Amino acid sequence: MQKIKESALAEILKIHENGKINVASNAPIKDYATLSQVYTPGVAKVCQAVEANPALAQKYTIAGNTVAIVTDGTAVLGLGDIGALAGLPVMEGKAALFREFGGVNAFPILLDTKDTDKIVETILHIAPTFAGINLEDISAPRCFEIERRLKAKLSIPVFHDDQHGTAVVTLAGLFNALRVVRKNIEAVKIVINGAGAAGLAIAKLLLAFGARQIVLCDREGAIYEGRAGLNPEKTLMAALTNQEKLSGSVNKILSGQDVFIGVSTKDVLTAAAVRDMNKDSIVFAMANPDPEIRPELIADSAAVIATGRSDYPNQINNVLCFPGMFKGAFAARATDITQEMCLAAARAIAACVAEKDLRKDNIIPSVFDKNVAENVAAAVAEAWARREK
Amino acid sequence: MQKIKESALAEILKIHENGKINVASNAPIKDYATLSQVYTPGVAKVCQAVEANPALAQKYTIAGNTVAIVTDGTAVLGLGDIGALAGLPVMEGKAALFREFGGVNAFPILLDTKDTDKIVETILHIAPTFAGINLEDISAPRCFEIERRLKAKLSIPVFHDDQHGTAVVTLAGLFNALRVVRKNIEAVKIVINGAGAAGLAIAKLLLAFGARQIVLCDREGAIYEGRAGLNPEKTLMAALTNQEKLSGSVNKILSGQDVFIGVSTKDVLTAAAVRDMNKDSIVFAMANPDPEIRPELIADSAAVIATGRSDYPNQINNVLCFPGMFKGAFAARATDITQEMCLAAARAIAACVAEKDLRKDNIIPSVFDKNVAENVAAAVAEAWARREK
Repeated sequence: MQKIKESALAEILKIHENGKINVASNAPIKDYATLSQVYTPGVAKVCQAVEANPALAQKYTIAGNTVAIVTDGTAVLGLGDIGALAGLPVMEGKAALFREFGGVNAFPILLDTKDTDKIVETILHIAPTFAGINLEDISAPRCFEIERRLKAKLSIPVFHDDQHGTAVVTLAGLFNALRVVRKNIEAVKIVINGAGAAGLAIAKLLLAFGARQIVLCDREGAIYEGRAGLNPEKTLMAALTNQEKLSGSVNKILSGQDVFIGVSTKDVLTAAAVRDMNKDSIVFAMANPDPEIRPELIADSAAVIATGRSDYPNQINNVLCFPGMFKGAFAARATDITQEMCLAAARAIAACVAEKDLRKDNIIPSVFDKNVAENVAAAVAEAWARREK
Repeated sequence: MQKIKESALAEILKIHENGKINVASNAPIKDYATLSQVYTPGVAKVCQAVEANPALAQKYTIAGNTVAIVTDGTAVLGLGDIGALAGLPVMEGKAALFREFGGVNAFPILLDTKDTDKIVETILHIAPTFAGINLEDISAPRCFEIERRLKAKLSIPVFHDDQHGTAVVTLAGLFNALRVVRKNIEAVKIVINGAGAAGLAIAKLLLAFGARQIVLCDREGAIYEGRAGLNPEKTLMAALTNQEKLSGSVNKILSGQDVFIGVSTKDVLTAAAVRDMNKDSIVFAMANPDPEIRPELIADSAAVIATGRSDYPNQINNVLCFPGMFKGAFAARATDITQEMCLAAARAIAACVAEKDLRKDNIIPSVFDKNVAENVAAAVAEAWARREK
């Protein structure tokens, strides 16, 4: 067993050698004619054109189609605060996915500071190269303030993928899961376990989509208005959720609920609690790499089960969202990513599963479905255009 | 005539469409096996390996082979302070050249600030992604302080190409030009016209190489110790140059000199002044795009003539230096770029012209000579290794 693991690790390391991305030249430079066009003296003409009309940078430079993937390395995958450099393999992987699925340039920017003010200021100072900012793996609650301040100051899309990308793909899956069990978003009772960046963003997006009964849980159990020690973000959401003021552990309060959404840690959910849920229950156990409960333990009780893994059906994976989200925002020359664009992206992802293919084990398209990024991009661009009117 | 110019401009614009570089994935991502290696969950293993041993980032990420090309757009080509965004076509061109000639990733970082403190702080905050910093087109005298402070704080190479790249290639050309006319660096009298970033750096490197008689000129003429209104950099160089305390315009003081090096503006040099130079004079008229004097006007009086242009012999072009300089520094894991490395690079470039091919109209290799970057890289790495002993 150990041997197999070592060979798998060797293969993973091999594929990472020299990094997973490279900055390539669009054209070979093999003669003086080309050199004098891409560099001096010819390039001066392009500089002057952009100086006279900065909008031309969209057409004649990478500035119209390039994302900065910015991290301070404080919340990398499930690994926690491993530092920005150790997070670089994730950022490169994400950049490769932006290229492969969205046709977008993405470049990792690793920060050597965890200070909120300095992070905001640094991103503002390097923004001119970029058409969009993808915040990545920055721990809560700093991620909320950083995103808020950047959105206020920059006129390009700023998107914290751990929040909104996760929320969009979760909503897409839930939208189709509800169709499978023939329940309405307005009527279902939803428990979200995990009240960090992802859990809070999911709650907000579900509310915007029409959900009326949501209970958020953190490590101390259900969050309700007035619970002691809540941070500002949780306090805000406590006012909008858990009208019944349920309290206690997630497993206790799951009785009589319709939907469980986990963005927490492995094995925190019990099979008994899932059995206590309403008929045709939906369980999204999305903790990575190991889910809140192993799907095989609840195969008989839950109607629809989704995870973050590719070795079970219904993989909730952010790559379904971020390439198309930025591709569409760039195409529309959007200056922001709005909630309407997130809702449109979720609907577009869900619509990639054709009615006839919709089943309890097929609520979300494959990450390799080439239509997804295209459809998300079109929907997002359209949502932006609608907003402008 | 106008028609031809328009079609040339159209061709230049065409080659710039969508920018001149792209961020590419090193491997296609077409199945779950690959996806789970380059992204979650497999990538976590690489993150953990780098966290445990940060030096592994050199091997498993782009951080060992990536240059930031940083500009605030204050001194772009001969265009001046056109702003960072308008400078992006130059930065992309440079990035393409880093890739094509050096096999190095280079990515443009445009700054939205011209404040020295903020520029330094911003670069320090984004440094972890990069193995080296190429400062580009930042106006003097801020460029000196920015480079000095970054070199003091960072343990990766920091290189202001407009200073040191220009100085290295100029020295390479001068080294061979002196061989053609059989004069020694210690004996020749040299006038450098232009006392900005490039002129000052050339003066320093020539002094380090053994030159003893240099006069620097700016727009007000020869710089001498005690001249009123000199900035700190000029004051420093005034103490090391112009022992004779020559004063007056460059054309006036050129009488009896052996070498003219121009990094100034077009048409400032007169044919009469060149005729007043010593026998076998050397004229490097490197102003871009138009030289200090047109070579055909001094073909009879100067022994060796070089320019920055590709349509005359002896093109002094920075691309002969920077790709190999960084390639070699990265190969040696150099934490700095030293004067010894610059001298070694100049000698390596000069050596790319074989003894038998050395002529007055062939003192410098072609920018398309594939040996140049390789030889520069080897020489630079060796110079760093020598320093460590």
